[in-house]
Amino acid sequence: MPEALRIGVIGAGRIGRIHGENIARFIPQARLEGIADIKLTGEQEAWAKGLGVRLVSKDPEDLLKDPAIQGVVICSSTDTHADLIIAAARAGKHIFCEKPIDLSVPKVKAALEAAKQGGVTLQIGFNRRFDHNFAHIRELTLAGEIGSVHIVKITSRDPAPPPPAYVAVSGGIFIDMMIHDFDMARFQAGSNIAEVYACGAVLADPEIGKAGDVDTALVSLKFDNGAIGVIDNSRKAVYGYDQRVEVFGSRGAAAAENDLPSTVKLSNEKGVSGEKPLYFFLERYRDAFINEMTAFVDAALDKKPAPVTGEDGLENMYAALAAAKSLKEKRPVTLQEIRDQY
Amino acid sequence: MPEALRIGVIGAGRIGRIHGENIARFIPQARLEGIADIKLTGEQEAWAKGLGVRLVSKDPEDLLKDPAIQGVVICSSTDTHADLIIAAARAGKHIFCEKPIDLSVPKVKAALEAAKQGGVTLQIGFNRRFDHNFAHIRELTLAGEIGSVHIVKITSRDPAPPPPAYVAVSGGIFIDMMIHDFDMARFQAGSNIAEVYACGAVLADPEIGKAGDVDTALVSLKFDNGAIGVIDNSRKAVYGYDQRVEVFGSRGAAAAENDLPSTVKLSNEKGVSGEKPLYFFLERYRDAFINEMTAFVDAALDKKPAPVTGEDGLENMYAALAAAKSLKEKRPVTLQEIRDQY
Amino acid sequence: MPEALRIGVIGAGRIGRIHGENIARFIPQARLEGIADIKLTGEQEAWAKGLGVRLVSKDPEDLLKDPAIQGVVICSSTDTHADLIIAAARAGKHIFCEKPIDLSVPKVKAALEAAKQGGVTLQIGFNRRFDHNFAHIRELTLAGEIGSVHIVKITSRDPAPPPPAYVAVSGGIFIDMMIHDFDMARFQAGSNIAEVYACGAVLADPEIGKAGDVDTALVSLKFDNGAIGVIDNSRKAVYGYDQRVEVFGSRGAAAAENDLPSTVKLSNEKGVSGEKPLYFFLERYRDAFINEMTAFVDAALDKKPAPVTGEDGLENMYAALAAAKSLKEKRPVTLQEIRDQY
Amino acid sequence: MPEALRIGVIGAGRIGRIHGENIARFIPQARLEGIADIKLTGEQEAWAKGLGVRLVSKDPEDLLKDPAIQGVVICSSTDTHADLIIAAARAGKHIFCEKPIDLSVPKVKAALEAAKQGGVTLQIGFNRRFDHNFAHIRELTLAGEIGSVHIVKITSRDPAPPPPAYVAVSGGIFIDMMIHDFDMARFQAGSNIAEVYACGAVLADPEIGKAGDVDTALVSLKFDNGAIGVIDNSRKAVYGYDQRVEVFGSRGAAAAENDLPSTVKLSNEKGVSGEKPLYFFLERYRDAFINEMTAFVDAALDKKPAPVTGEDGLENMYAALAAAKSLKEKRPVTLQEIRDQY
Repeated sequence: MPEALRIGVIGAGRIGRIHGENIARFIPQARLEGIADIKLTGEQEAWAKGLGVRLVSKDPEDLLKDPAIQGVVICSSTDTHADLIIAAARAGKHIFCEKPIDLSVPKVKAALEAAKQGGVTLQIGFNRRFDHNFAHIRELTLAGEIGSVHIVKITSRDPAPPPPAYVAVSGGIFIDMMIHDFDMARFQAGSNIAEVYACGAVLADPEIGKAGDVDTALVSLKFDNGAIGVIDNSRKAVYGYDQRVEVFGSRGAAAAENDLPSTVKLSNEKGVSGEKPLYFFLERYRDAFINEMTAFVDAALDKKPAPVTGEDGLENMYAALAAAKSLKEKRPVTLQEIRDQY
Repeated sequence: MPEALRIGVIGAGRIGRIHGENIARFIPQARLEGIADIKLTGEQEAWAKGLGVRLVSKDPEDLLKDPAIQGVVICSSTDTHADLIIAAARAGKHIFCEKPIDLSVPKVKAALEAAKQGGVTLQIGFNRRFDHNFAHIRELTLAGEIGSVHIVKITSRDPAPPPPAYVAVSGGIFIDMMIHDFDMARFQAGSNIAEVYACGAVLADPEIGKAGDVDTALVSLKFDNGAIGVIDNSRKAVYGYDQRVEVFGSRGAAAAENDLPSTVKLSNEKGVSGEKPLYFFLERYRDAFINEMTAFVDAALDKKPAPVTGEDGLENMYAALAAAKSLKEKRPVTLQEIRDQY
Repeated sequence: MPEALRIGVIGAGRIGRIHGENIARFIPQARLEGIADIKLTGEQEAWAKGLGVRLVSKDPEDLLKDPAIQGVVICSSTDTHADLIIAAARAGKHIFCEKPIDLSVPKVKAALEAAKQGGVTLQIGFNRRFDHNFAHIRELTLAGEIGSVHIVKITSRDPAPPPPAYVAVSGGIFIDMMIHDFDMARFQAGSNIAEVYACGAVLADPEIGKAGDVDTALVSLKFDNGAIGVIDNSRKAVYGYDQRVEVFGSRGAAAAENDLPSTVKLSNEKGVSGEKPLYFFLERYRDAFINEMTAFVDAALDKKPAPVTGEDGLENMYAALAAAKSLKEKRPVTLQEIRDQY
Repeated sequence: MPEALRIGVIGAGRIGRIHGENIARFIPQARLEGIADIKLTGEQEAWAKGLGVRLVSKDPEDLLKDPAIQGVVICSSTDTHADLIIAAARAGKHIFCEKPIDLSVPKVKAALEAAKQGGVTLQIGFNRRFDHNFAHIRELTLAGEIGSVHIVKITSRDPAPPPPAYVAVSGGIFIDMMIHDFDMARFQAGSNIAEVYACGAVLADPEIGKAGDVDTALVSLKFDNGAIGVIDNSRKAVYGYDQRVEVFGSRGAAAAENDLPSTVKLSNEKGVSGEKPLYFFLERYRDAFINEMTAFVDAALDKKPAPVTGEDGLENMYAALAAAKSLKEKRPVTLQEIRDQY
């Protein structure tokens, strides 16, 4: 058995801890070697020690300088991602970075270039590709079970809207929320997106409208390979986290329903009822987070291409920018138009 | 196209009207020629005329004497079934008779013998074999899709208990209600029943207990072909008419869920809910009633064996009698023990 | 009980016969009084006589002139609809007309005006509103179960493409096929459509492309009431007739799955499989055809507004024309732009 | 936060490792302190060290003598369970013991008595009560959602038969396999079992018959509280591990379907198909194993009663012995008859 990949996690917030624990518990071929957080609390330090982490620091640089650490997982705030990628790439560390890479295309490009120059693995945290349901649809497609892809339909609705303060700095629904779905659409279609047309409305929460965003959006898609598709988002599905995908093709269709806490059905005078979808994204995508990190570790160890590349991150961002422009200008927008701006 | 089978219906109550209308509307190879009911009302007469029936009478004999009528559908009260079968058989009419043939085994045997002597088709109204769900399970079994049958499980629950007065004269839950399920069990197993063991309790309606019956029953089955099975009955399923069958075999299993008024699912804060099963047996088995009558007409016209014979009726009755005895004597009872009594 | 509505059916093709039989068999408050078909065959005549129809003719005028006939059901070829509506309205007959009214907006308007002048009931054959699944969704919405409508999603795919010769004269996928879905969208949203944006492709059948049409289409919708939506169509779903609707709102969502021939699931080494959707539209919408005709008869008898009016037909047509224009001009098109052309 | 419960695991086979890893990874209020296995391999030792276990030994006595260890998890071979319970109880350790306690009732009784004398927590490994599906049914029942329990139905089928050599020493299908279902039946009914009647057959694997056992069994149940029920077992369900429960009561019914690897449905020309049930019991009950151990730790720490007691283990054993006797003697057998033998 080869040596395990020694990993440092930068940012010990919610998602950083998830990744840290997954590495420590579930990925035998990786070892959680360091944790850094610029605002490290005593509680975070205790948590890191409890996981047997050797190097706990307030300075991410400490991880990058440590020769034993081979890879970093960047979970700090979005505005630090690009710089950390560049620094890590220069330090020769493999990089797993949470999405989005940055809100600025030039900074994203610079980060991608740095990773390329550094010859390191760079994987972006689009975890849903690793979900058991959505991955299985893709497997069926790749196995030829649905023939060539004609239509991709993605339903993606959050259980409750974020605070207006968050919305104001989020970059908007397309870059903050639908970017996951653009990635899913590209993944399922096996193609980049050629054009989008966006409809949006403030129907769920007027505060979101005041913050300058929409809370309900529907984007139709044309893919480079000729397929078409649609994504719908809502910030507020009262029945919970609604995450479904359907791919329709020349030889069939594959569709994934939501995951539920149990399969139990209750029959009574009112009807037959089952459970609501798993409510919290960390629960819904529990295994997807493990799977994506496992894939990153394997890619780094085996010098294979990352399954979700920096280019994927960039393309997803182009789609989000095109959708925002489409909504604003009330016309279909090609991704080439966006690409050409940079 | 050959001449249609000319049919007279005896008994213009609820089920008689269903059969009459089905013959008139849905079975081109049959013609509703006569209606007889010993208590014929003006409203029934108007209904018959509305269907274009030529011969409407208070005397079933009028149908039996009419040379143009080739078959009769017996829907009168149970105590008249056996005598009418005998009379119809002597008159050379094909016979469809509602279940049960009679509550007395010797009278059933006499009726079967008469039909045999008369060389006429005799079909008993075990309609559930013709249900789209249950028939499809049997088709899958006959096509080899589940291999040899190992276990048959039947759930059969009524939405609401009958009036105690009805219970008192019904012959008890096994002969009144579970007899349909014994027929289904034999149909799905492709075998007669060798032995039953019955559990029963008064859990749903104390009035049924006062009437000397149980309202909840579970009967385990051994079939002649080595398979095993179970039937459960309740007189009161608050969520509606619960009619499900599962057949498990060496190569797979086939199971039928309930039919619903619509496929709609409502997702809200409480959960995800769908409709209750179709509540009323005439609605649930609407098409099964048409299908069984079509099969009778075809059997009579083509001189093929009836799909549900008098012997089926007798075997179902033996099973019901064995179950009643098992419950009373708290021991497994073989059907041979019952058969040997007659 | 009031007198039954006496109805004449014009056009004895497939759909004319369905309506004729439904009237004769299932609608006690209606009577099938006449059948007219300009190419009446002996077989059609025999069918009409078998249903007890009094007046069978090659000339629709015979029905319109017959004073006993109170309503007509127009099932002749599309190019005759508008003229027949005008003639029937002038004759004071209530009118049920199959969709589309006409391919020309001015002719549609003339027909609507004639019906209005005649003071007769005019109902258009958008039967899907009367489907048990889709009607139940609307009932839930009207009962407040999903709150205000935010998103309407309609999946509508045919099992097999029509012959290219048909496609060439059909008016195209939007007017021929998606018009049903525009009606469904308006019905479920409880609102007219404000704007459409159409994506389309030739993915299923190159012959359709040669005939100048697309076989796969996806149209995003903005409704007058602020809701948004999407319809997707394919001419070829290999698994059968795919007809699903989902309505998402502020308090929940309601979604209808396909109807199946049976509820049976087969579990074997390969997986757990169920039946394909009902394949044929006449089977899928069997009860919807009965329900829409019953609603027409009731509206005519009770002098209530028709549940699907001529204006509905016109609005659905505007949506189809806007979608066709959107596809051609690669831009969103408002319905007002279309309305203003006429 | 109180001190964590320090646990030693006896037996480092498949199930011992599962429990050990669950304690180490998922139960913060417990610490995996020791591992003992009389045939400890180097590989097992390395595994234990990897989990940070302090005390690794070939002698279970070492765990019992260690004053720091507060509880033991007994996963050694069945014939050692009773003696280890007795020794652990005398050493004052809390005890989690895999099922069955022993194949001899007197030895089970002696073990239970020892635990009682020792004043320690004793929990038996009937893990299925902790399954998300089955626990949810029980919660619904306890919440009054189905009223009083009338009928309990349990389907429990293994994907593939065990080797004949295993069958020969297993104690037979009732003690080896159905004992889990007797526990589930008692759990769901909220009552002990009063009487059983068993049907059994060799239908799946003749080798099992040669080993003196049956491979297909169906047992009807009468509970002390008046409810009735049925369990069916097969050693070979080709579609996978089939674990379903249905509870029917006066106010409704609750039923759990199987867990699947994904929710994906594939629609193609053959039909609509989904995945087979999770095949392997360690996967199906992954979380149930964590939940039962968490419950044990909490019971031991909080000095609460164990959720599955030694008495539960004994009652389940009585049910299995009664079923075996029923099958042999072809008659219903009361549990009191079995209890009275000891």
